[in-house]
Amino acid sequence: MDYEFFMKEAYKEALKAYEINEVPIGCVIVYDNTIISRAYNRRNIEKNTLKHAELIAIDNACNVINDWRLENTTIFITVEPCPMCTGAILQSRIPTVVFGTRNKKAGCCGSILNMLNNNSFNHKASIIEGVLEEECSLLMKNFFKKLRKKG
Amino acid sequence: MDYEFFMKEAYKEALKAYEINEVPIGCVIVYDNTIISRAYNRRNIEKNTLKHAELIAIDNACNVINDWRLENTTIFITVEPCPMCTGAILQSRIPTVVFGTRNKKAGCCGSILNMLNNNSFNHKASIIEGVLEEECSLLMKNFFKKLRKKG
Repeated sequence: MDYEFFMKEAYKEALKAYEINEVPIGCVIVYDNTIISRAYNRRNIEKNTLKHAELIAIDNACNVINDWRLENTTIFITVEPCPMCTGAILQSRIPTVVFGTRNKKAGCCGSILNMLNNNSFNHKASIIEGVLEEECSLLMKNFFKKLRKKG
Repeated sequence: MDYEFFMKEAYKEALKAYEINEVPIGCVIVYDNTIISRAYNRRNIEKNTLKHAELIAIDNACNVINDWRLENTTIFITVEPCPMCTGAILQSRIPTVVFGTRNKKAGCCGSILNMLNNNSFNHKASIIEGVLEEECSLLMKNFFKKLRKKG
């Protein structure tokens, strides 16, 4: 699987969030080497906790596959997912998570917790990190720089 | 706050799930001593990971309050929430979680993890457990008994 190719697509989603002043995180879900779902963070514009990129993408993917189990998919996210989104990855049994850059304040795939490698849960997932890390990290940094200037 | 009163309302929601052969978990969200959102687990019928009672209730509550921050609310759930739903409670900054019975296989408010009392996250929540514990626990046991008979 061409990790960089799909991460570039997630990055394009993150850019859409950046353009509307949302924290620039994008996500795609791949099944059978095809993107079946793509989304970007819309939490502020929708005024809704659940509108993180990953949750929107998982919601769409369940509709496409017509199952709550996304067992043969791979999820690509520009930034390490938060506890909610990592929990949703667990619950939907996604086997592989690929992310760009770490989220040191809330990441649950290695930073604060590693929820995807806990023997007590009934599911585990593989983690591949650091794909297009520089670009994904720079986009976040630029976003927070822009935010500080505005404030 | 009358914990038993609101838990009874969450229990009524759980009964609705039981009747349609979903894992019987119900939830209400209370603001200013009034229920602003109520939901029950619909994961199988909707074929969607995100249709746990808590996520449906949080989604509705964000719409009612018109904000992703549910800062002055209390969430009542018949069963200890899973990693995804506990993460959503964190993300929406709900300050108090009241639940009926523990979920030893996936609970993240004390059983497998306690995600609501971790200094590394930017939010913590108080946990009140064991409200109507017997009823909430018995409903779950009866559900799995019924499921085994069917299987």
